[in-house]
Amino acid sequence: MINTTRLHKLMDDFIPHGGTPDGGMHRLTLSAEDGAARDHLAAWFTEQEMTLTVDRMGNMVGLLDWAGPDAPVVMTGSHLDSQPRGGRFDGAYGVLAACEAVQAVREEMAATGKAPRCNLAIVDWTNEEGARFQPSLLGASVYTGMMTAEDALSRRDGDGITVAEALKDIGYDGRDKNFPYPQAYIELHVECAKVLEANGQHFGAITRHWGAVKYRLAYIGRQAHTGPTPMADRHDALLGAAHLISALGAMPARAAGTLHTSVGRLEVSPNSPNVVPGEAVMFLELRSPDQAVLDWAEAEMLAAADVGAEIARVTHETRFIDRRPVGYFDEGLVALATDCAAELGHGTMRLDTIAAHDGICMIPICPSIVVNVPSVDGVCHHPSEYTAPDDIELGVEILARMLYKLCDEGLDVLQGKA
Amino acid sequence: MINTTRLHKLMDDFIPHGGTPDGGMHRLTLSAEDGAARDHLAAWFTEQEMTLTVDRMGNMVGLLDWAGPDAPVVMTGSHLDSQPRGGRFDGAYGVLAACEAVQAVREEMAATGKAPRCNLAIVDWTNEEGARFQPSLLGASVYTGMMTAEDALSRRDGDGITVAEALKDIGYDGRDKNFPYPQAYIELHVECAKVLEANGQHFGAITRHWGAVKYRLAYIGRQAHTGPTPMADRHDALLGAAHLISALGAMPARAAGTLHTSVGRLEVSPNSPNVVPGEAVMFLELRSPDQAVLDWAEAEMLAAADVGAEIARVTHETRFIDRRPVGYFDEGLVALATDCAAELGHGTMRLDTIAAHDGICMIPICPSIVVNVPSVDGVCHHPSEYTAPDDIELGVEILARMLYKLCDEGLDVLQGKA
Repeated sequence: MINTTRLHKLMDDFIPHGGTPDGGMHRLTLSAEDGAARDHLAAWFTEQEMTLTVDRMGNMVGLLDWAGPDAPVVMTGSHLDSQPRGGRFDGAYGVLAACEAVQAVREEMAATGKAPRCNLAIVDWTNEEGARFQPSLLGASVYTGMMTAEDALSRRDGDGITVAEALKDIGYDGRDKNFPYPQAYIELHVECAKVLEANGQHFGAITRHWGAVKYRLAYIGRQAHTGPTPMADRHDALLGAAHLISALGAMPARAAGTLHTSVGRLEVSPNSPNVVPGEAVMFLELRSPDQAVLDWAEAEMLAAADVGAEIARVTHETRFIDRRPVGYFDEGLVALATDCAAELGHGTMRLDTIAAHDGICMIPICPSIVVNVPSVDGVCHHPSEYTAPDDIELGVEILARMLYKLCDEGLDVLQGKA
Repeated sequence: MINTTRLHKLMDDFIPHGGTPDGGMHRLTLSAEDGAARDHLAAWFTEQEMTLTVDRMGNMVGLLDWAGPDAPVVMTGSHLDSQPRGGRFDGAYGVLAACEAVQAVREEMAATGKAPRCNLAIVDWTNEEGARFQPSLLGASVYTGMMTAEDALSRRDGDGITVAEALKDIGYDGRDKNFPYPQAYIELHVECAKVLEANGQHFGAITRHWGAVKYRLAYIGRQAHTGPTPMADRHDALLGAAHLISALGAMPARAAGTLHTSVGRLEVSPNSPNVVPGEAVMFLELRSPDQAVLDWAEAEMLAAADVGAEIARVTHETRFIDRRPVGYFDEGLVALATDCAAELGHGTMRLDTIAAHDGICMIPICPSIVVNVPSVDGVCHHPSEYTAPDDIELGVEILARMLYKLCDEGLDVLQGKA
């Protein structure tokens, strides 16, 4: 159904918006690069005669209102933002795949002369990555009511710039109130794990997402000269943090593959070679498919945090907690994806996702699914992130067929399958 | 001898150049604040009819050339730069004390009608602190030939700005070749330790400085998504660093008060909450009065660095090493300081210094000494750093008397005493 030349050209055309010479992508949310990518997408919507809406969070939707105002909306897309020095496929693939798939569906419907039963919407969510602003899934979380816009807009990046200010800077502080609410949501994404690759598979449907507990935990010591200050008089915030980082690193070995831990960001203050650190703020994560393991890990982490404080003679405080429970995607959409893949001779592997996706936020709103094609070696969030052209095309072809079936047969097709 | 009102006014007048509302000082070397403080000092030299010279490193000297071109130069001073959010006394006290002491000596000589036997020079050394650029003692190290100007000028701060560029930015990229070489060097500094306070003393002469070994050690892992990447596939640079920081924190307990260790700065990259850190660069220090302990500690540190690499499945590399051996100050100047303090009814405590001072660089050049007054609670490199006015005045009075004796009797006074 799809035009692969057109697909690859569109993907190539977006690379200059933050592409790095090593093949990676540096397109932090609401940066100048993100602004350029958004402008490009907006221009594409106009070209396709799709109606652009931008909400307060800068979430962008292009609507193809071809089935009339009372028809349901099927939304597809992902996010154009990347990690710092990240990859070119994570997120952007889902948005640009949606563009090609919607074009292909329009052409197919035109060729058959049928009337579509659903409107189609393409979405680019703001700050999926959570790199510049925390938490991740910021735009989708506000859209789905999990977070207030006031809270989200006041979040600050490392330079103290708020989301509201950053949106204004690139002209995406939207005012549209008629942002479309979908009756089904489909997100195509590269896998960011190597389960498909390890099993020789090329397509997967995510059926469950892991739960996550994220803390911003600060150790508070006291600045002092690293030379003369007697060791017994030091209150070294970084030493406390180091203990907790080590303890977190050792915990997964006690949870048989059902626990991932990490500290991705550490802010040391004043971070001067000759000053005992007065503060160390850790951004730590615990992830598990099992709520009981998550609860155990959180308690273990807090106990280790206390030990770190005692060793370093410092205190600690929790500045932010984000909890995402374990959850499940729509089985009707899983079945639809499975049918479409089967038409192309491919099996559909049932997958867990450990990474967050905007589609997780959509679960309480409407039938939602995230489908995956392999990422070589499971690499994500690194310039070497790569998905082979065949897999890129396969994912978009399946997405186009899913959208086509929904447009052709209507949403009832999901009921029969679930 | 000194005018205490004039002294306190001069010290107060320099506070606006980087003073913070909490009573601290934020005057990073070669910053706009440092530039303003330097301009102020230069204007003061002009007012006093002292000749300003600025060398390639931005070291500033005001020379009182009153004893003729063949007379020896006695230099006194310290540094105007501070740590980030540091204190108001560390460094600036020594420069402004020198200003008041030189004025007092001029007035005393004028009153007695004697001819001075020495010229007097007041110095402000560039980047004593080593906060913005590493290593510390940068200006004095080049001046004394321990480091080349080319090497020093090419050092970069955290924003990639070189020392050469920063000097140019504030107009202190000096060209003067006739920078005065002293035949004696005296530096007054707050103690940055609480030995004086603990012993009920108000004045000390440093007789020995500890040795130091400083490493910039980088752990190199691989960026990956903190969610899906299996724990066994992670190469977490921060986890390696955390192990080494913990190990360093535990080492001093095995060296009976003769070892200080610290990691003051840690650069995590990309430092994004959702990315396994690909690199973690530690600025670590080992300090001891005993060379054998230093050697042992360095070997222990390197062994712990290997263990950290193994635990985190990462590599490490050493990017910079700075070694400063244990050393001794001039006993002639210690005796002179002791005499001057005794005239005021004060004992002179013999001290070690663990902190670096510009005076350490001067040891191979000429008789050199650093003398101390107490810092409350031994605090340095913190906004609460404080020295009581009585102690401030005592230090300057002793400095003035030392300078006066050298001007009155000549440098021979040191030979008799050593």
